[in-house]
This record gives sequence, structure tokens and C-alpha cells, in this order.
Amino acid sequence: MSLRTGIATVCLSGTLPDKLAAAAHAGFDGVELFEPDVLGTPMSPDEIRQLCAELGLSVDLYQPFRDVEGAPAERFEITLRRARRVFATMQELGCDLVLICSSTAPDTIDDDELAAAQLRQLAELAQEHGLRICYEALAWGIHVSTWEHSWRIVERADHPALGICLDSFHVLSRTREFSGIAELPGERIFFLQLADAPKMDMNVLQWSRHYRLFPGQGAFDVVGFTRAVLEAGYSGPLSLEVFNDVFRQSPPALTAADAHRSLTNLEAALGPVPTGSGPHGSAMQSSDMHSSETHSSETRSSETSRSHTRGAEARLLPAAPSPGTFAFVEIEATPSSALQLRSVLRSLGFTWTRTHRTKPVTLWEQGDARLLLTITAHPDTSGPHTRIAAIGLDTSDVDAAAARLRALDAELLPRVVSEQETAMPAIASPDGTGVFFCPTRGGAGGQGWLDDFLRTDERANTGQPDAAGSTEASLTNVDHVSLTQPFDRFDESILLFRSLLDTSAPASAEHAGPFGLVRSQEFSPQDGLRLVLNASVLRRGSWSPGVLSPQHIALRTEDVVQAADRMHAAGAPVLHISPNYYADLAARLGLYEDFVESLRSRNLLYERDGEGGECLHFFTPVLGSQVYFEVVEYRGGFSGFGTADTPIRMASHAAQRRAALLSHT
Amino acid sequence: MSLRTGIATVCLSGTLPDKLAAAAHAGFDGVELFEPDVLGTPMSPDEIRQLCAELGLSVDLYQPFRDVEGAPAERFEITLRRARRVFATMQELGCDLVLICSSTAPDTIDDDELAAAQLRQLAELAQEHGLRICYEALAWGIHVSTWEHSWRIVERADHPALGICLDSFHVLSRTREFSGIAELPGERIFFLQLADAPKMDMNVLQWSRHYRLFPGQGAFDVVGFTRAVLEAGYSGPLSLEVFNDVFRQSPPALTAADAHRSLTNLEAALGPVPTGSGPHGSAMQSSDMHSSETHSSETRSSETSRSHTRGAEARLLPAAPSPGTFAFVEIEATPSSALQLRSVLRSLGFTWTRTHRTKPVTLWEQGDARLLLTITAHPDTSGPHTRIAAIGLDTSDVDAAAARLRALDAELLPRVVSEQETAMPAIASPDGTGVFFCPTRGGAGGQGWLDDFLRTDERANTGQPDAAGSTEASLTNVDHVSLTQPFDRFDESILLFRSLLDTSAPASAEHAGPFGLVRSQEFSPQDGLRLVLNASVLRRGSWSPGVLSPQHIALRTEDVVQAADRMHAAGAPVLHISPNYYADLAARLGLYEDFVESLRSRNLLYERDGEGGECLHFFTPVLGSQVYFEVVEYRGGFSGFGTADTPIRMASHAAQRRAALLSHT
Repeated sequence: MSLRTGIATVCLSGTLPDKLAAAAHAGFDGVELFEPDVLGTPMSPDEIRQLCAELGLSVDLYQPFRDVEGAPAERFEITLRRARRVFATMQELGCDLVLICSSTAPDTIDDDELAAAQLRQLAELAQEHGLRICYEALAWGIHVSTWEHSWRIVERADHPALGICLDSFHVLSRTREFSGIAELPGERIFFLQLADAPKMDMNVLQWSRHYRLFPGQGAFDVVGFTRAVLEAGYSGPLSLEVFNDVFRQSPPALTAADAHRSLTNLEAALGPVPTGSGPHGSAMQSSDMHSSETHSSETRSSETSRSHTRGAEARLLPAAPSPGTFAFVEIEATPSSALQLRSVLRSLGFTWTRTHRTKPVTLWEQGDARLLLTITAHPDTSGPHTRIAAIGLDTSDVDAAAARLRALDAELLPRVVSEQETAMPAIASPDGTGVFFCPTRGGAGGQGWLDDFLRTDERANTGQPDAAGSTEASLTNVDHVSLTQPFDRFDESILLFRSLLDTSAPASAEHAGPFGLVRSQEFSPQDGLRLVLNASVLRRGSWSPGVLSPQHIALRTEDVVQAADRMHAAGAPVLHISPNYYADLAARLGLYEDFVESLRSRNLLYERDGEGGECLHFFTPVLGSQVYFEVVEYRGGFSGFGTADTPIRMASHAAQRRAALLSHT
Repeated sequence: MSLRTGIATVCLSGTLPDKLAAAAHAGFDGVELFEPDVLGTPMSPDEIRQLCAELGLSVDLYQPFRDVEGAPAERFEITLRRARRVFATMQELGCDLVLICSSTAPDTIDDDELAAAQLRQLAELAQEHGLRICYEALAWGIHVSTWEHSWRIVERADHPALGICLDSFHVLSRTREFSGIAELPGERIFFLQLADAPKMDMNVLQWSRHYRLFPGQGAFDVVGFTRAVLEAGYSGPLSLEVFNDVFRQSPPALTAADAHRSLTNLEAALGPVPTGSGPHGSAMQSSDMHSSETHSSETRSSETSRSHTRGAEARLLPAAPSPGTFAFVEIEATPSSALQLRSVLRSLGFTWTRTHRTKPVTLWEQGDARLLLTITAHPDTSGPHTRIAAIGLDTSDVDAAAARLRALDAELLPRVVSEQETAMPAIASPDGTGVFFCPTRGGAGGQGWLDDFLRTDERANTGQPDAAGSTEASLTNVDHVSLTQPFDRFDESILLFRSLLDTSAPASAEHAGPFGLVRSQEFSPQDGLRLVLNASVLRRGSWSPGVLSPQHIALRTEDVVQAADRMHAAGAPVLHISPNYYADLAARLGLYEDFVESLRSRNLLYERDGEGGECLHFFTPVLGSQVYFEVVEYRGGFSGFGTADTPIRMASHAAQRRAALLSHT
């Protein structure tokens, strides 16, 4: 399949040239021009056409044209007057299609016959200008609010220059039943607008104007919807129209790249679609020709080449390499923080087992948990600094991973790799954390990343035995890692990780932290690899004495009580949990006093799921600037990440940090 | 009337001590302890009680206690177990009242008899502990969701330790009819929670959890509701419970001050309420006594003194001094920007008429429009800088104004006033702009502020005649001023200006700017004094190449065409409006070509209101860093501020600024 891609200028922030440049750089083939963007720019329509041509963008749609059908006679006269003006502008813009959205005017007459007649009249006028119009049912149209109704009117009007426009939001915000779309004559579907959205129980107009998302970022079945439209024989572009308060003020280049990635994913998810299989597929080609007739030659040629490339990319988007587990988690720290981390790792039972051949990176192991500790070149002048610099994912087919990253237009991480080193494709997530796809030891990927490290004789290196770690391990593996993403790139982050791991994303949760609400998105592609992405619900201001971007590594154990005691004996720092929590817990769940005491004395948080599964876990304070550890045991097939008590954990971190600051002054 | 004030800890950001300190400093008498705040803090209940006592705060309520009534037998057993735990905690906290909110548990049995029996049993248990419980109907309670229903159950349970809790949100989010509340026996209303909210068409639970506001900031009739509760004979505290995403992450001291001001306004708006006039008023005193029985002695004494003060304050909140017009608008600029402004003011027809006796401030006049131009001490090193430093409001009774500002706990602006100078009470609005209340010339206030300025012989000072201004004036007065407030202090700003001007605030509008959505709130206390407050809908990030906090002064004229031509001839800089706008305008409104041409040639924006009123206006580019001017003519009694084309104006400013930046590089 080779589908052209488009984006509405209203999706992007900035002036019109900002938006067009961002769309072109992201790889879009065309744009929908949002009328206010045209009315507000000092550029003339012809200058806009020129710029689009230079950028290799076709102008696929001019929108919106409101309150046409069902207008009282005198208002319809004004409508025709406006239409002539708009059509003239479109000719200058090199755009042959305008969007008519169903009327919301209070004086609109509820009469399909009148509506059809007026649309036919407008279509006739458009045809005289060599243009076409497409009619779309707004979910909140005063009389016409469903695609079926808009189609009945278009059918009734029966004019070659009149078709319908389908918008996934307007359909999916009202219903999950859209199978009838596949039966439409494809050549009468003049345009397809795509948007996703989170499930929300609110006024549909507000929902649409503020909370739309790109496909794959929300809860709608945009894939199924798009497939139905393609099965009908639609052959125009997949064009994004997303109204979103955050995207409206985010850097347009980032938003556009995110948007384009959403279509790459969508095309891949569509799989082979029998394009043209629709009852009227045969007519598509001509309609497709027609739609590009008015494009300037430069534009058309560039389109063609592009769309071929895109098609190729789309066909070639490789399946996700199904990473098995965390190969490693790399923590970067300034010298003094590294010293602290090193002693904490020992107290948690880790052993320094290897050292990188060429870099200041040490490998710490316990069970299947592998942590890399990297000392940064940055001095400690600006205070302690720690961060999760990268996560490594055990990957069977590294080349497939690399191909997929390229196809996803993901920001590849530049890396200096010496001869002996294993090449690992890697990208930077929006928060800067690297995501590495690592050849498994002895896997099909050939050389394993561990070969980049030399075995360490710990005693020889440190002069001190490492009883805690080397002998009996308490921890089995890394259970999950949580990262904090930038506020205005959270939805982008979710889509990126969904597409990297080829997994679904359940609805995100919200936790009430002491310094604001935190959104949290969990990923469980498979048991061995679980991730959590967090972000504040609103961008934080100057009042945020908390840790701005906490990151944490959850370490799995089979016996958290034994682990806690062993680690406590080894001097591990533990996050203090309020006695008030335990008093409530005992009464709330009716636990035996001695069991609660065993939790309290170890600062263990405890929760039960519906099926009697249990989660017992404790945390370290935040070490350095951002990073803390969790040690967790799941009993009885506990499902989830044990986040029910997150507000308690956050308040405890805030209180402990406050106390620490006091002790430093 | 002397009402105690309270605030729920959930309204404020930070750790529990942060919240308590903020509440005390803002002048609250007591607090509601939100259970998660208690469970999350390392402080023991007794330590919390101690801290509250030291801060002079009573602990008025412990909340929430969920899913009590209608519980199946075995779940109710667990409820009783939890209740014993909570009651013990409350005794340590020195709190005698707990909030029971109506059940939302799916397994809740819909049986008022059972509900009453269970609440009675819980009340009996509470009484044994010397405590009381109050029952509140959540707007989304599974079976009980109205205050009437909750009252029927409480009446049926008929236990002295059981009363109802009324929450303005839960009532007003469902109905505007609440007159029946005034008929309730006041001594059975154990607690009153107050919250306002904007009108929103969405899931009531989400509305409540994210968008509550303080009284006076939203659309609810909180005043009428409170009056009804007081008429019933309620004598407990007015306690705020506001869940708001922004307040959750804002500096708690600011939020608490804002919250307290909302109650000061509310008390003033209540006017004389025949407290105790309720059918059972006589019983109040005892219930009031009871409610303070469990408070530590320190607390009680401090309460008493406080509540007396508060009562006094409340009684004494003076009426707003009804400012007539803008006495002046003061623009502050760095030297180079001042030079530019000076020439712009001349080109707009202003004349330099006076100079301040002691400060580097010049007065520029035209008609009744008076602008002050102040040159800052700041050098130009960090680029051009301009801002509206202050607005002066002609005030009949300056002393009353000063008293009102004090009563409103407004942040008084420290000012160095020399002997000869007129003392003008002033406050700083959240964006830092000063608001001065100025004695009118010859007004009752005695000495007029103009006397601080010496007449200037312009020619003598500048050596150049000032034809444009001195001869025929084009402008009559300052029509309105718009200021940009910080994102997270917008609701606070609205309440502050509402209370300063004693005016109402219509629903705020939203404008789609090139770099994000902008909220806009208009104030029209009277014709001569109109204000607009703006703020971005979301805090802006690094991508905000626009002017972050634009401010503007709209100047009124009787003939905008003549004014435009005269100013253009005098070299006034004018904001260029896209020809595309005029092409659309002509078609949209069916205007004569020559009229449209007269608009286009002068870059005039044009709009009509429903009654045929017209607004014609043009703008200057942004001068320096933040400030621009508007020249506006209203025809045929146009209503409003002429903001229909704001997105066009914003896009034009963005484009012109972009072009200016290019020309500088």
C-alpha cells in the first residue's frame, strides 16, 4: 500500500511558515490549510502556494467552510458570496478541495431536501471553478451529526463535484459501529481526516477542540476505522486534524515528527488492505488524478517520489524485535554521587563484576539484574547529579530493530563505537534516556554486548571482600523502570514506546503528589520487560521543591522480608513510611498486628489486588538528583505495579527530602 | 456576623507542614485534615495537633470516610473496624468531627432504612469516643446524591452525634434550587464546605476533582447558598474544599491568601444575615460550644481572639470606592525604549504636559487620556524593555479604598512618598502591575495626584513644536487596558480585580493565538473603566517565540479614520493586517468595496455585533518588550471590546515581530 500523508496546519504551533516547514521536514506529503492561518498571515495565497511547492507539500484541503446546508434563503445568498471568494482564494493556493462541515447555526432549517439542493448548488459553483467540495458531519451538527446522514444528503444532491469527508473523531466520538463505511463508493469519499482521543465523558465539542490526539495516542479504533475507509476504495491522503491545547504551544518540529510517526504506525497496523477492493474501486484512479490536477508541476513530481518512498517505508516497517528482558539499566552519576551509589549498590547486594574495555563504566550484577554505573565527566560543582542514562533491551534481531527505528523516524542516538565494541541501535526518548537494543549473549545477533566488558576481580580491585553480593543474592531481576517525560511530550513518549515495543497502552493513571498531579502510563509488553512513563499533568512552575523528574528502578525479589533485613544489615538507605499509614492499613485490611509490625519495621508498603494477589515493596530515598530504587515482591500472582499507595510514597519522599535539606543547612 | 473560616489541606500544595503554615499565615481559623495528608506525613497525630495549636489553627474536620451507608453486613464490619481506628486518630488530633460521604461502592444496598441504621450505629460509636459524624451527599453517590436525600436519612437515623454536611459544589453542580436548606434545623448542619466552579458540561466527578475554584472565581451562586445555610441557623466555620489541578502545584502561601480573600468577599457579599434566625437558632450556641470542647486550650483562646478580629474585619469591609475612570496609565521603559515610546506618543497625538516634581516621570495628555512615561534605572543591556507599570483609578474616597485594600489582604505596594506628594493607596496585581487609587482632582479626596506634577512648557523643553498633539486631539480617553497575568494566578487575579472594583466577571473567553490558547477575562464595572486580564491556558514552555506577556492600552476615538490618517501622517507605527483578512471580510459581511478599501488601507479590523453596533480599530506593533497600543472607535452603541478578530491580531503581531527579528539579523 502506498498512502499519501497530510496534516492540518491547525495541529501545529507557530506562524504559517513555521507550520509548513515543520510538516515538510517531518516527511508529510501535503497539508490542510486552516482558514484562520491563511487570513492571519501576511503571505498572499500565491506566496503560500509557492512556499508549499518549494517544501514539496501539496495543498490537499482548504477548511473549514461553515453553516452552508439548511440556511434560510437570505443567509444562503451570503454563503454563495463567501463561496466565490473562497474558491478564488483556493485557485490561487493551488487547492482543489474545500471542507464543508455540517451547520451549527441556530436558524438552520432541518430539511434534507433543502440541504441537498444547496450543496448541489455550491458544488455546481465549485465545478465552474474547477474545484470540488466535501461535506462532513460534525458530531455536534445542529441537524446533521452522523456520517450516515451526511452521506444520505450527498447521495441525494448527486453532483460529481460533491463528496463526503470522513473524520475519525466525529464518527468514533459517537459510536463504535462504523462497518457501513466499507460499503461506501470509495470515489465519493473525497477526504479522510484522522484523529484519536482519550475516552472522556464531557461535551463533545470541548472534547474535540482541546483533547484530540494523534492516532495511537488515544482510545479510539482509528486503525479499524481507516481500514473500513480504505476498503471502501478511498485513495486520498491520510490527513491528520488534531486540536490539542498542548500541541498548540509545543515546538512544531517535534509535534510534526510525532504526528508523522503516528501515521507510519497506523499504516503498519493496517496491514495489507485490499485497496480498490471497494465496490467502486475502479473509479479511484481518476478521482486521484483529478485531485492532483490543480497542483503545480513541481509539487506533483515531488509528491510522486515522496509517496513512493513513503509507501516503501510503510511496507518495510519491520515488526518489533520483541525484546525479552532488560539487558541492563545504566545510571550516570557525578563523582560524589557515584561514590554514594556504589555503596548503595553493595548494600542492595550487587557485585561489581565487570568493567568496560574503554569507558568509565562498571557492571554490577545480582541474579539477572544488571546495572551499569557510569561516572560523568561533569564535576560536582552544581551539586549531586544522578540519572538513568539508558536502558538496554535484550534483542533477538538487532538489525530488525535498527530498521524499525529508522522507519519510525525515531531520533537515533549518535554513538562512538570502537572496533571491538558491539554496535547497538539506540534512540533517545523525549526525556533524554537512551533506549538500546542489545544482542543477547550468544543470540542470533552474534557478539553479545557483555563482551565489551572485562571480568573484574572485585577483591583485587577494591581490597575489600563483597560478602553481601557475591554470596547469596536477594534480587532476581529488574522488574520495571520508570522514567519522567517532559510535560508537553508525554503523549509523544507513549506513542514512541508503544511503537518501539509494539505493545498496547492501557488508560493512564493519575497520582496526587504533594506538589501536583502526576500522569502515569504503564507498559507490559511481556513479563520480563515492564516500563512506566510519568509526567506532571501541568507544566510545573517555580514552586516545585520536589524532585522534578524522578526515575526509578524496581528490583524483583522472591522474599522481600529477607531481602529487607539483609539489606538493612548491609546499611542500605530506606525510605521512611509514616506509622500513620500502618495504623490505617491494619484497620482497612484487617491484618494481624504482627504482620503489620513486620511491614512497619521494614517500611514496606502493602497492597492486595482483587484476586488476593499481594504486593510488598520498600524504596530507597532519592539518591543524588533523580534516581531511587524499589525492592518488590509479588505474591499470589499479583497483577500490576503496586501503585495504589503512590501518594504515600511520594509524600514520604517529599518529607524525607525536606528533612535532608534541613539537616544540610 | 462573626464567622470562623477554614480550609481543607487538600486545597494546598506541599507537605502537611507547608499547608498548615500557609493556612495560618493567610488568617484561617481552622483546617479540615484530608486523610491522605495525615497518612503520608511522618508527623504523629499528636505532633500534628501540637503544630496546629502553635499555628493557632483548630482542627475542624477529619475527611473523608467513604462507603459507610448501605454496606453489606461483612463490609460494614470492616467499616466499624476502620471507624474505631479513625476515631482514635481523631482524638489524638484534637478533632471531634468526621465527614462521611455517601457511598459510591457498587455493592451498596439501596435501602434508606439500612443506611439510617448503619449511620446511627456509627454515630453511637462516635459518641462513645466523644466525637460526632456528619453525612454528605456526593453529587455522584451511587444511591444518595442530593442534600434532601442525605437529610432524610439523617433525620431517620435521629442520633445527636449525627448531622449533615453541606457542600456547595455537590448541591450547585446539580441544581439551582436550594431554598429548602434555609428550613433545615441549623444545629443538625454539622459542617459547611464551600467551593465554586466554572460552568462545565462534563462528568461531575472529573469536574469536581480538577476544576473547583474558590467562591467568587466561578459561576455558582455560593453567596445565596451560604446565606440559606446561615439562615437555617448554621454556626460552624465557612470551610473551603477545592480540588484544582493548578492550586495543587502552586505556592501554598499564595493560594491560601487567595482562598482567604474569597471568604472575606463572601462575608461582605452576604450582608447582614439574621444568624440564629433559623427555626432552631437557639440550639446553635450549644452546638458551637460542643464543637470547640475538644480543642486544646491554646487553640480555643487564639480562635476566639481571631474570630473576633475576623468578625470585625468582615463587618468593616468597606464598599468599593467606585473608581470613575483611568486617572492614568504608567508605562515604564528602559532609556532606548523610552525614546521610541516618546516619538510614538507624539505620533499618536499626545502632548508632554507635565513632569513629576521628584521622579523621572513625564505626563502625556490627549483629551482625557493621560499616560505616564517612566524611565527605569535599568540599563538597556538586556535589550529593550517596556511594561505597563501601573494603572491609576480616579477614586472619590481614597481612605475607603485604602481600608478596603487592607480588609482584602491585598498585597499593598510599598511606596516612597515625599512630603509634598499625594498619598495613593496601591496594590500589586499578580503580574506586578500596580493599581493606584487616586484622589480625583478637586474631589472629596482633597489634594489631586496631578499636583505632584509641574506644568511643562513643551517647546521650551524640546525645542520642537508639537502640532499633532497640542492642537486638535484625535483621542478622547483610555477605553481599556489589558494585562497578562501569570498562568497559575489567573483565577486569583480575576477574584482580586472583582473585589477591587466590586464588579462581576462574565465567563472568560478563549483565543487561539499562534503560540497557544489564551484565556481572556473582561471587566466593565462602568463605562469609563474597562479592564481585560489575559493568561495562557497552559504554562508556556521553551517554545514561545511570541511576546510572553503582552499588555496593551486601548485609546478611544470618535473618528478612527481621521485619527488613523492623522497618526499615519505623524509617522505612527501601525500593525500590518493581512490583505487576506479584508478579502474574506468583504465577502463575509457583504461590505462595499470602497469601505473595505478604507479599512484595508488603514489596517483597521472591523466587526459588527448583533444589534448593528460596529467596532473599528487598529493597533501598533509591540513596542519594546511587552506593550502595544490600540486606537478604537465604536459606532451605534457597539457592545464589548471588539475581540472577535483577536486571532488575526495575534497572528499579525507574531508575523510582524518575526519580520522585525529577521531585519535585525
